[in-house]
Amino acid sequence: MVTMRCMTPKRMQTVKVSLGPRSYPIHIGVGLLKRIGAWCEETGLGRRCVVISDRRVAPLYGHTVLRSLRERGFEVVPITVPSGESTKCLDVVGHCYRKLAAHRIERSSFVVALGGGVVGDLAGFVAATYLRGLAYVQVPTTLLAQVDSSVGGKVGINLKEAKNLVGAFHQPRLVVCDLATLATLPAREYRSGLAEVIKYGIIRDATLFALLERRMGALVRRDRAWLGPVVARSCAIKAQVVGKDELEGGPRAILNYGHTLGHAIEATSGYGTWLHGEAVAVGMIAAARLSRERVGLPEASVERIHGLVASAGLPTGLPPKAANADRLLRAMALDKKAAGGEVRFVLNRRIGQAIYGQRVPTELVRQEITRLTWLP
Amino acid sequence: MVTMRCMTPKRMQTVKVSLGPRSYPIHIGVGLLKRIGAWCEETGLGRRCVVISDRRVAPLYGHTVLRSLRERGFEVVPITVPSGESTKCLDVVGHCYRKLAAHRIERSSFVVALGGGVVGDLAGFVAATYLRGLAYVQVPTTLLAQVDSSVGGKVGINLKEAKNLVGAFHQPRLVVCDLATLATLPAREYRSGLAEVIKYGIIRDATLFALLERRMGALVRRDRAWLGPVVARSCAIKAQVVGKDELEGGPRAILNYGHTLGHAIEATSGYGTWLHGEAVAVGMIAAARLSRERVGLPEASVERIHGLVASAGLPTGLPPKAANADRLLRAMALDKKAAGGEVRFVLNRRIGQAIYGQRVPTELVRQEITRLTWLP
Repeated sequence: MVTMRCMTPKRMQTVKVSLGPRSYPIHIGVGLLKRIGAWCEETGLGRRCVVISDRRVAPLYGHTVLRSLRERGFEVVPITVPSGESTKCLDVVGHCYRKLAAHRIERSSFVVALGGGVVGDLAGFVAATYLRGLAYVQVPTTLLAQVDSSVGGKVGINLKEAKNLVGAFHQPRLVVCDLATLATLPAREYRSGLAEVIKYGIIRDATLFALLERRMGALVRRDRAWLGPVVARSCAIKAQVVGKDELEGGPRAILNYGHTLGHAIEATSGYGTWLHGEAVAVGMIAAARLSRERVGLPEASVERIHGLVASAGLPTGLPPKAANADRLLRAMALDKKAAGGEVRFVLNRRIGQAIYGQRVPTELVRQEITRLTWLP
Repeated sequence: MVTMRCMTPKRMQTVKVSLGPRSYPIHIGVGLLKRIGAWCEETGLGRRCVVISDRRVAPLYGHTVLRSLRERGFEVVPITVPSGESTKCLDVVGHCYRKLAAHRIERSSFVVALGGGVVGDLAGFVAATYLRGLAYVQVPTTLLAQVDSSVGGKVGINLKEAKNLVGAFHQPRLVVCDLATLATLPAREYRSGLAEVIKYGIIRDATLFALLERRMGALVRRDRAWLGPVVARSCAIKAQVVGKDELEGGPRAILNYGHTLGHAIEATSGYGTWLHGEAVAVGMIAAARLSRERVGLPEASVERIHGLVASAGLPTGLPPKAANADRLLRAMALDKKAAGGEVRFVLNRRIGQAIYGQRVPTELVRQEITRLTWLP
């Protein structure tokens, strides 16, 4: 059981991801963008950098970040890519490579990813592969990216066949979560991030889960008094899991609670139709019900999970169009975690503890998918 | 000084690359292709694999390799790519990714690279990035790939701006050098491989260098009695250097002797005009002369290097068209190893020992490039 020491509001909190020589800090607080230049200097990064952002985030926060870096003497090349999941593709990666070559980016240069998960995954993959690896800094501006994708070093892009099929493990040197950037986030995207926060409670921290049950109203209103500690706690859980299993040989898989079906929902509906957190929300409902059937999660806990997901304004079921069990099962078999064509699930016996690598009979999965369908 | 224990002919030799959990063996001998299936089994690789080869090598050796794997129960997906340096590009990488997705390649699957350096680098990069990293096996069929590119985990592709700008460090699980495959190698490509062998003598092993001086005639005739030990010794030197500096933080840079100018010659002449070893040969002549000027390599040693390169049938100078000093200097500044726009050279005080990170005044480099020009 994890203590709740970091759950009281503070000005800025720092969570450390402990990975030996690849360790790095995550700074969480309000108004941190203007401190990025100083932190990059402290971290000992090279004099030249590339700031990769997208057309939605660059106009909002690009100026602050560029100024912060330039004030500290960094030479900055900005690259702006289109926004949206379709940006995470090989063509955009090639576009970035060519920009880096044109601006004579060297091994000592670094990359700053300013944006949501799409930008972080794309820019991180570019950093992982350009000149066989450049240092990079994550500056996540969505809740989802702050609590999940910016931490842990998973970077990558999509193929049309499935999400994140191409990628690498490449840890950032620094993560800066400025909670102020969440103010401009569309409500639907913000709620999508709450799905991952709920996931941390389910898989690792019953106290966090209970706090979320009490404070979901404040969180949905983006109340910073609760947002700061909740983001910090989420990052701390992710850091702890990643610190024990950097390359996902085993226990890191628990972070995929709700993701097996979630990824399949995203893939079969065309990327962008469902937000990641929305798909994961439905996936968590399914995982909770499968946990009841397979490992004895009490019905009351299934109901609490359902209630918390619903209170965050997240979907708890599938519209009939999305609930094609055959297509979803096929997409799951293509999941990166599938082995021998067999899908494994992350399940939980109780709230706060998850187990990975669980077999579930296909017929039971099919049955749960059917149960998830909204009645017309 | 390194002993010559492994320089006597044997049936098969195995060199170990020691990198802790990423250690792997290099098997060197005649007729080894048919043993690949057994070795993959011993190594504990998954049941499914992709064999990536090119249109030149696949018809010659693909059948033997596929049969060897299938006889041991592996399920094999063959992928054939065009031959030549232009295959090392993002488009072909994308083509391979789509094939892997179409054939449901999983994390437990592995990749076999069957071919020269182009195939090894391309297939290695695909393996490094698909599903965030698949195991792979190098089966180099050119002398250059056997003694150099298949060992050490550097994988990557070219951008039109420069060679190998995109890549990763991803160690193979096994390297199989079948000397019989060298019989079908065009003479020019074979000689190109000898350039890297000569390089190992210059940077690390005066005894190897002296042996090459005595036996270059036999080696040019591809006499297996000498080829086996020379390939094994080259691999052992590379393994030793890589074992000390996997990610090229420092000493691994000595492997770039002759490569600073060599890469620039390749880049400015359009890839494929010069073979890699030919360009490196000229680069080594320049490095030897710069070593004389900067660190006191005796003139007699410069002449020995020149003589050995010439005796291998490799170029020792540049045709006037290729000797554009301004273009070559610009290309060197884009080299991955450049820092702050400044090019560093690997030089040597004597044969058998190299020093990296050496500054050389641009004017001196320009002067040596001019000296390299063939008189019309």
